[in-house]
Amino acid sequence: IAIDHEAFSQGQRKFRVAGVAAAGSAQQELPNAQECLEVMTGAITPRGASAVIRYEDLQMSKGYAEIIIDAVPDQLNIHQQGSDRKEGGSIVKAGQMMGAPEIGIAATVGRSDIMVKDIPQVLIISNGDELVSVSDHPQPHQIRSSNVHTIKAALKNGLGIVAETLHLPDDEQVIKNKLAEKLEEFPIIILLGGSSKGKFDFIPKALESLQVQRHFYKIAQRPGKPFWFGTRGDRNHVFALPGNPVSCFMCLVRYVIPWFRSCREDVGRQQFATLSEDFSFVPELTYYLQVEISNQDGKTLAVPRTGHGSGDLANLCAANAFLELPADRDKFLAGEVFPYFKYR
Amino acid sequence: IAIDHEAFSQGQRKFRVAGVAAAGSAQQELPNAQECLEVMTGAITPRGASAVIRYEDLQMSKGYAEIIIDAVPDQLNIHQQGSDRKEGGSIVKAGQMMGAPEIGIAATVGRSDIMVKDIPQVLIISNGDELVSVSDHPQPHQIRSSNVHTIKAALKNGLGIVAETLHLPDDEQVIKNKLAEKLEEFPIIILLGGSSKGKFDFIPKALESLQVQRHFYKIAQRPGKPFWFGTRGDRNHVFALPGNPVSCFMCLVRYVIPWFRSCREDVGRQQFATLSEDFSFVPELTYYLQVEISNQDGKTLAVPRTGHGSGDLANLCAANAFLELPADRDKFLAGEVFPYFKYR
Repeated sequence: IAIDHEAFSQGQRKFRVAGVAAAGSAQQELPNAQECLEVMTGAITPRGASAVIRYEDLQMSKGYAEIIIDAVPDQLNIHQQGSDRKEGGSIVKAGQMMGAPEIGIAATVGRSDIMVKDIPQVLIISNGDELVSVSDHPQPHQIRSSNVHTIKAALKNGLGIVAETLHLPDDEQVIKNKLAEKLEEFPIIILLGGSSKGKFDFIPKALESLQVQRHFYKIAQRPGKPFWFGTRGDRNHVFALPGNPVSCFMCLVRYVIPWFRSCREDVGRQQFATLSEDFSFVPELTYYLQVEISNQDGKTLAVPRTGHGSGDLANLCAANAFLELPADRDKFLAGEVFPYFKYR
Repeated sequence: IAIDHEAFSQGQRKFRVAGVAAAGSAQQELPNAQECLEVMTGAITPRGASAVIRYEDLQMSKGYAEIIIDAVPDQLNIHQQGSDRKEGGSIVKAGQMMGAPEIGIAATVGRSDIMVKDIPQVLIISNGDELVSVSDHPQPHQIRSSNVHTIKAALKNGLGIVAETLHLPDDEQVIKNKLAEKLEEFPIIILLGGSSKGKFDFIPKALESLQVQRHFYKIAQRPGKPFWFGTRGDRNHVFALPGNPVSCFMCLVRYVIPWFRSCREDVGRQQFATLSEDFSFVPELTYYLQVEISNQDGKTLAVPRTGHGSGDLANLCAANAFLELPADRDKFLAGEVFPYFKYR
């Protein structure tokens, strides 16, 4: 019930019920200090009312409500206009992802149309004559194409990007022609395989002949060394990832997904975890250790889940992140803290 | 190049190039121990070959390849069949979510069709005569409907569920008739608002009259006390969440989403964070504190981001989780560890 708090202060406890204020009906007025209105959650407070008392704290009988609690502060259970947020204040910053809370906020302030960044058109190109389709039964010298499915799913799950896909044979002329055509259509192309040093690795050469300017080729890391990246003017960004499944996925998780995020101005803070056991890696390369990130007593722990090398994609589901171990050391001790890149 | 390792062991360093083994072509045979084959990444190792040396470690000239490194172990750069995983072993457990790595694994083993759990049909029902649509300009006694958009987005983002929505007025007969009809159509109904003690809160009564058996009504917590849950046989699960935006969202994040996950057998381990500063909450209720979970030096930190009460949905985007503080205490100290429920 809504009452005049002044009456309560002067000792009044029993109020005649003059009516009901339902949620969604126009504002009413408290007739006088001796009477009350039953007022529902969501209703506008009646004019003249300065406290609302819950049914749980009343005895209702024969058209009267009696307050059975001792303390009723002024303005009890009244939500003042402007008490959540002030007019003109900023509640969602530009660049913030439109998650569930932001969509609720947009709804409540009446923003039924919102300008958001467009999701780019992305093409994933697999390459390699050893690849056959998933439903084929491979010969001993063949394997089923899997990277394209992994990368497509990762873009969909992590970024909401529905990428198109294409397979190219190990044929220099076909590769060049198709790339020329697809560079006109797709601002972002992710190539899988065909970028290392083999005789039939035509990708880097083809891209450079099509005026895609190389920014780097090869990273001092394991896995994922033969990673090529280039752009053509403002229009094209081209990532050529290595073909080994673990290398390919690691480069996507470590570089490509963060790049997409930074384009959305959605750069989260780098996450760090504590290594759970000693680990060593001798070559002078940044090592991306497969780990399972878990949370124990408020600590973020990275437990190594080493697989059987960069072809062992089955191991990716035993782990959930890559822990970045720096190149300038070869021993990494339990209890040390390193950055990680989580993919689930 | 692929060579007979035995020849290397006996001191041979220069090999005549007898041909090229491309990825995807049938297995060849090393003609003899004096010759080699150029073999590409992804190609099947030629019969008779027992080590593969990278271009980087060779000098190629006039049809000959000369090895310029000192150590070439037997089987170098040869990936043995069965070395990643053994035939008959299990690589993805039943109940595991089909994320990007699992989809890659399914592809590589030729599982183009996979039996997965169905995504259930979900209906979200908003309720309350004070609610108008997002594009309406509300009167002083009205507010725009927002919960339905928040909850719909949270189900979509967190679980991939595309829920349908419906609005019901505060009319007992309409509510009962519509619920009767929708219970036949939807195995899962999530109601927003109308479940507390007000005169026009018809939801619990209507559900019970339709043989939806109540399992509980009200939880000793803040926010989110008036939460009703019931089932009808095996067919219907009905969640009636409170109408206050923060309460509504908190109940979804704390109870409804974990319930959906448990239906998928996708119950992750409970996560814990360290409270960053002292906090007190006196009533004997479990308190769900809005916090920002962040990661500092391998520690998971929960920084309180208290808003202005359960109507202040704008605060949900300042925080990213609810920290669960137990009911039997009223002081919670910096450095103590509590479970949390993260929503972004």
